[in-house]
Amino acid sequence: MHFAMVFYIISVLIMVIGGFMLIPLGISAYNGETASTHAFLQTITLVIISGILLNLFTAKRRGKQFSAKDGFLMVTFSWIIASAVGALPFYLSGTIPSFAEAYFETMSGFTTTGASILQEIQSLPRSILFWRSLTHWLGGMGFVVLTVAIMPLLGIGGVKMVSAESPGPTMDKITPKITHMAKLLWFIYIGMTILETILLLFGGMDLFDSLTHTFGTLATGGFSPKNASVGHYDSAYIDMVITVFMVLAGLNFGLYFRALTGNLQEIKRNTELKVYLVIFTVTTVLTAIPLIGKVYAGWGESLRYASFQVASIITTTGFATADFDLWPSFSKYILFSLMFIGGCSGSTGGGIKVIRIVTLFKQAVTEMKHLANPRGVFTTRINGVALRKDFVYTVLGFVSLYIMLLLITTGVIATSPGDYNLITSFSTALATVGNIGPGFSLVGPTMNYSFFPDYIKWFLSFAMMAGRLEIYTVLILFTPYFWRKK
Amino acid sequence: MHFAMVFYIISVLIMVIGGFMLIPLGISAYNGETASTHAFLQTITLVIISGILLNLFTAKRRGKQFSAKDGFLMVTFSWIIASAVGALPFYLSGTIPSFAEAYFETMSGFTTTGASILQEIQSLPRSILFWRSLTHWLGGMGFVVLTVAIMPLLGIGGVKMVSAESPGPTMDKITPKITHMAKLLWFIYIGMTILETILLLFGGMDLFDSLTHTFGTLATGGFSPKNASVGHYDSAYIDMVITVFMVLAGLNFGLYFRALTGNLQEIKRNTELKVYLVIFTVTTVLTAIPLIGKVYAGWGESLRYASFQVASIITTTGFATADFDLWPSFSKYILFSLMFIGGCSGSTGGGIKVIRIVTLFKQAVTEMKHLANPRGVFTTRINGVALRKDFVYTVLGFVSLYIMLLLITTGVIATSPGDYNLITSFSTALATVGNIGPGFSLVGPTMNYSFFPDYIKWFLSFAMMAGRLEIYTVLILFTPYFWRKK
Repeated sequence: MHFAMVFYIISVLIMVIGGFMLIPLGISAYNGETASTHAFLQTITLVIISGILLNLFTAKRRGKQFSAKDGFLMVTFSWIIASAVGALPFYLSGTIPSFAEAYFETMSGFTTTGASILQEIQSLPRSILFWRSLTHWLGGMGFVVLTVAIMPLLGIGGVKMVSAESPGPTMDKITPKITHMAKLLWFIYIGMTILETILLLFGGMDLFDSLTHTFGTLATGGFSPKNASVGHYDSAYIDMVITVFMVLAGLNFGLYFRALTGNLQEIKRNTELKVYLVIFTVTTVLTAIPLIGKVYAGWGESLRYASFQVASIITTTGFATADFDLWPSFSKYILFSLMFIGGCSGSTGGGIKVIRIVTLFKQAVTEMKHLANPRGVFTTRINGVALRKDFVYTVLGFVSLYIMLLLITTGVIATSPGDYNLITSFSTALATVGNIGPGFSLVGPTMNYSFFPDYIKWFLSFAMMAGRLEIYTVLILFTPYFWRKK
Repeated sequence: MHFAMVFYIISVLIMVIGGFMLIPLGISAYNGETASTHAFLQTITLVIISGILLNLFTAKRRGKQFSAKDGFLMVTFSWIIASAVGALPFYLSGTIPSFAEAYFETMSGFTTTGASILQEIQSLPRSILFWRSLTHWLGGMGFVVLTVAIMPLLGIGGVKMVSAESPGPTMDKITPKITHMAKLLWFIYIGMTILETILLLFGGMDLFDSLTHTFGTLATGGFSPKNASVGHYDSAYIDMVITVFMVLAGLNFGLYFRALTGNLQEIKRNTELKVYLVIFTVTTVLTAIPLIGKVYAGWGESLRYASFQVASIITTTGFATADFDLWPSFSKYILFSLMFIGGCSGSTGGGIKVIRIVTLFKQAVTEMKHLANPRGVFTTRINGVALRKDFVYTVLGFVSLYIMLLLITTGVIATSPGDYNLITSFSTALATVGNIGPGFSLVGPTMNYSFFPDYIKWFLSFAMMAGRLEIYTVLILFTPYFWRKK
């Protein structure tokens, strides 16, 4: 393990975070929010000092090589430490007086979950609300770079770029490739941010609300500076813009990358994309049908609210324009099922991911064909290519761990003296591990996570992180194999 | 497809069922239950006539060979037709005036689910109650013979006895082997039945109650002739006997078979057995802890009720000695988690089965080892033997289909105008697909399934059957591949 290398990268990371804090610092100074100004100044100072120290300490010992293990360590530690640093402004400004809650809120931000412990949002300092939404934007982009450019190098997601025989990739070899991809991805992400912000401004939102909601949308996060979330604006136009951008944010960013490099053929035969769009369309209609006449007057309104909520749940954003916990059972059931799916791989969305659901389904069909025809030879194809066996294994392992993490999280929540009902415990697990945000019952869309005891908030912070980092990345650190010297 | 062969076997099956109806016929005649006597007489007559006709019609056309496809058809049709025939006494005697409900109750019996539509049980004719419990006993045994002796021939369960190259097994080759195994299994099953009945008689139950509860236990069914289920007797001794026999019924009957043939080595290294016993012990303690002082006075009583309920849920029996829906969240959560597991393979229990959970878990661990050590070579071992790749695929396919069936069943329930809460819909799906019986909320242990509309009862009958027959067996009939000529 090359700890020096790991901590060097983290020192860069926290200084980047400190740099981004200059924006809310400016906002707080401009608005005369004294407590927040002090909090941001203190945090930035702390970050610069510790960043420089960490940088110096690791300067001599960092080599040029890093192993897969270093990668896992780096990724997990990045989220842990970024959340600690990011929590400081909330904590030091007194906006969130409990550190457990400040940490929960920040982890929820960086993991783009959007679960909040805040009971009253609108009255908070604008600089703090801006920082809260900015954690989404940074976390979302960080995750896309991670899944599209870095994770494949670690062998996660089934596409192993690094051959198992090589002695481990060197920084020289990888840096240019990652740098190039990361640059293009940032370009796309910033472009989409500008576009959505402008479209929201057209809808009558002010610049602050447009930016913060754009951050929440593109990161599939879900933090809103309004108590009633997007429902606050009660505007069909705004609902539509955000619905479309949530759906776009749930797409594999690698596809935008390919679109920019002119590779349209690969987009056309992308199975995950097709299935994702079909699921979105079909479940929107299914959710809308029971609403007609019961909750909303006609088809139009029902489809508007249904499509927004379906997009919000399948992309694991968590915005709300209605209290879907009060909707008819069948509509609730559809949203509940969508909580098991999530966005596309390589998107900012969480959950199990469409590609894995497709793999599970196709593999089941292949098994059935095989049983009906024991002498036949059948292959499972995705994107027109026969599925590699090790990918099926990875999916199997992932889904098992995902379900185990869901059940363990439900169990930890159920230990609370609060004695919550099963649907609260189970949907909290779904909403945090899947990085969705709202669930049902006590964690429904009009509720928040403040009522949980501190130890559950800490555990949920862990669950959000494990869910975000594709579980393997985090759980692997708990295995003896990871720490064993080869 | 050799329909003649399939229907020949079904003709034998229904005549066997008709033969077993002679017992409740005797009971009804002895007790002077006129309506039931007529119902049983009518059913038996009908069965004999149609059985003989079917036998004659198929006599000339049945060959000596049958394919895997014939096997799937035979197994699924057996359960469909057996339930139709078995429902007649309930329906014709007027005990259950709706045929949808009579069919549901019988399917619940033959699939050893134990979900009931009866609101008042104790006042029903004894012959009818006896027949109700007998469907469990017959279904349980039928299933064990199916999974231990027949399904492996069809390639289900991962152990393919028939080589894919052979032109299909001939009856001559298979019959002796199946007959031998089936005989031994019946011998074991009957032996256990006699033993449990005697032990229950010692506990002060009368012969009728001892027999019916033994049927419900060994088949992991759960029908009780008492409204309060096993809780009616309020006896620690009876609870203990039934707990032990539920646990025994959840074991792979192939192990008893091996014990009889002296193969103790294989029992000792059986991974599934060990994991099953560990899960039972650990979850019993975890369930009991929150009960102490809150629901029951001390450790002793808490363990008694917890162990009974844990055994009842993990083996998918469904007996109750307490209303666990009122237990503290954590205890409920443990029972909820157990609903995802189920008994051992080759037992009368339902659910996903311990062996598949073990496979999922071990495969996930192997994946993690591999990620931590990309150059290492790791194998997943069960029973000390490296796991075959096609077994992992089969498990993946099975679990996918299982979860899909759960979600579809939840969805069908959620379409009801009754607008049930999510935990009712979801736990009903778990309880029927997993062949458990009771769930939570509206289908809790003191509730019943009578309130569902007829179309949901029909669908749940299907879900119980699909769950019982390892899903593949039933769903395969819905694929175009099945009906395509090779």
